[in-house]
Amino acid sequence: MTDLPATFRRITLARRPQGVPVADDFRLETLPLAPPGPGEVLVRNRFISVDPGMRARLSGGETYAAALALGEVVEAATVGEVVASDNARFAPGTVVAGGFGWQEFGRSDGRGLRPVTDDRLPPSTAIGVLGIPGITAYFGLRDIGRPQPGEIVLVSSAAGAVGSAAGQIARIHGARAVGIAGGPEKCGWLTGELGFDAAVDYRAPDFAAALAAACPQGVDVLFDNVGNGLINQVMPLMRARGRIVVSGQVADYNNADPPGLNHTDLFITRRLRMEGLVAFDFVRESKTAWADLTGWILDGRLKYREDILDGIEALPDAFAGLFRGENFGRRLVRV
Amino acid sequence: MTDLPATFRRITLARRPQGVPVADDFRLETLPLAPPGPGEVLVRNRFISVDPGMRARLSGGETYAAALALGEVVEAATVGEVVASDNARFAPGTVVAGGFGWQEFGRSDGRGLRPVTDDRLPPSTAIGVLGIPGITAYFGLRDIGRPQPGEIVLVSSAAGAVGSAAGQIARIHGARAVGIAGGPEKCGWLTGELGFDAAVDYRAPDFAAALAAACPQGVDVLFDNVGNGLINQVMPLMRARGRIVVSGQVADYNNADPPGLNHTDLFITRRLRMEGLVAFDFVRESKTAWADLTGWILDGRLKYREDILDGIEALPDAFAGLFRGENFGRRLVRV
Repeated sequence: MTDLPATFRRITLARRPQGVPVADDFRLETLPLAPPGPGEVLVRNRFISVDPGMRARLSGGETYAAALALGEVVEAATVGEVVASDNARFAPGTVVAGGFGWQEFGRSDGRGLRPVTDDRLPPSTAIGVLGIPGITAYFGLRDIGRPQPGEIVLVSSAAGAVGSAAGQIARIHGARAVGIAGGPEKCGWLTGELGFDAAVDYRAPDFAAALAAACPQGVDVLFDNVGNGLINQVMPLMRARGRIVVSGQVADYNNADPPGLNHTDLFITRRLRMEGLVAFDFVRESKTAWADLTGWILDGRLKYREDILDGIEALPDAFAGLFRGENFGRRLVRV
Repeated sequence: MTDLPATFRRITLARRPQGVPVADDFRLETLPLAPPGPGEVLVRNRFISVDPGMRARLSGGETYAAALALGEVVEAATVGEVVASDNARFAPGTVVAGGFGWQEFGRSDGRGLRPVTDDRLPPSTAIGVLGIPGITAYFGLRDIGRPQPGEIVLVSSAAGAVGSAAGQIARIHGARAVGIAGGPEKCGWLTGELGFDAAVDYRAPDFAAALAAACPQGVDVLFDNVGNGLINQVMPLMRARGRIVVSGQVADYNNADPPGLNHTDLFITRRLRMEGLVAFDFVRESKTAWADLTGWILDGRLKYREDILDGIEALPDAFAGLFRGENFGRRLVRV
């Protein structure tokens, strides 16, 4: 049992962001820390996720979860350690993954908490390559993209948490992986470290030509994390019976008037399929994904990178930085 | 054996249409009629199809088939009767469906010709409710839309050949069918004759409100024959795990700059799937479709309407009229 501080800090939504979130959209609060009530556990969070997909919940509009109310703690995946418990399922010292959001401590009756018992990988992976990003890549390919051996899988935001896993998993399926990322360092990492067959820098002036050159046979699966602007550039490269996995739309989340999707005549002429996914839908099959992902990591076929910042106060700008393309791998804040 | 005329007429593509095709885009030609050569059959066409989907082939752009060359006979499905034969597979008098295009006679070595042996339905149905339109509706629902009992299937261009079949087949699958059509006569036919659960007139000034009122629980399957403008209006009504079957894009075929697809954030938030189809892809399974469609017609569950004009010279304007929303059921020209 750890000595508990008298207070803890959390970050709530102060107002709805317009466009890219800024510091004033959030409020850092200090509250007294109470011990767990009957049946409850108290968790000291160690890592908090910084997810682009959470942007949608900050606006009032519809999303896959209800909009976050003003004054609520910003939602995020967390991994931490039980520091006090009145719940027999969670002994103090247990490492647990959950969704406590942007706060230093979390309290729960145990629902939504998952003990992390496999210690072959660092606990941070429970909300990274084994968390929503890895699950999204895993099922987005297995159930929607379904790459066949020899097919071309093009992944956008490929140096991010989802994209870097998606490209490597595509190769595990026997496909060729081409990644799109910003800048030579990320592109070099994709081909040099992760084994992508090619990488294209979207910041380069000749991006469209480089993309076409990297996919001379076209694209069978577009695993997109960016949005319509990117998809519109890839559409002419899509091959017959191509699949577009709508995994994320990071370029559109902050845009009240995002670009429309063009070239939709190709849906008929090339028999395209486009489908969105939300990793939460696959929660019942998580064990299958964890087993495969862990095995691939341990045998060296799946590499991951974490982009860790320190201190809860770093969260708002760490989040805004996602939309500046700053993150390189899974962005987490250590608290 | 019929007495053969000395000449026959055909219609070729004179120039590439800009926007909606006009008479001067086509050329009516009279040519000498020769008897069949070795192994060939000569067919007198009786019905010629007038298909909106053929518009794409008239432009130079990509489509599911190559662009039609200038001077070629305009492509279309045909049904007719063998009038002279040097091919043992086709005795004179055999009714055959094929793709002879806009001409009074066709000549073939037999490839691409299919004897129509089931005489329980009129021969015209071989290129209507049992032809590409029926096949599109059948497989578009069975393999892509996959309506479940109680689900809502919204069909656009619902008084057309594909749409009218799609709505009725949706009901045979146990779903509720809502149709969109132009004008009270067509809407009345959908609900009064075909058993659609509701119909909405897209020409009415309160179309958006009427559409929402007709689908109070939202839409599970959008079977679209119109294009992005229509899909954009329906998107907010799509339910979670909704499917958009891209069957046709009649409003976009003549538009060099069609509207983009909006509301694409819903692909993720509502897990939507959108997929295009081309009936030719299902040709190997045609017998299954014919058996089901014929059975449904004979037992009264599937009704069809043919919109028949007379004379080969009627074809260009009959075709242009599709884009004015003129046709009411399967449009054919009798020659």
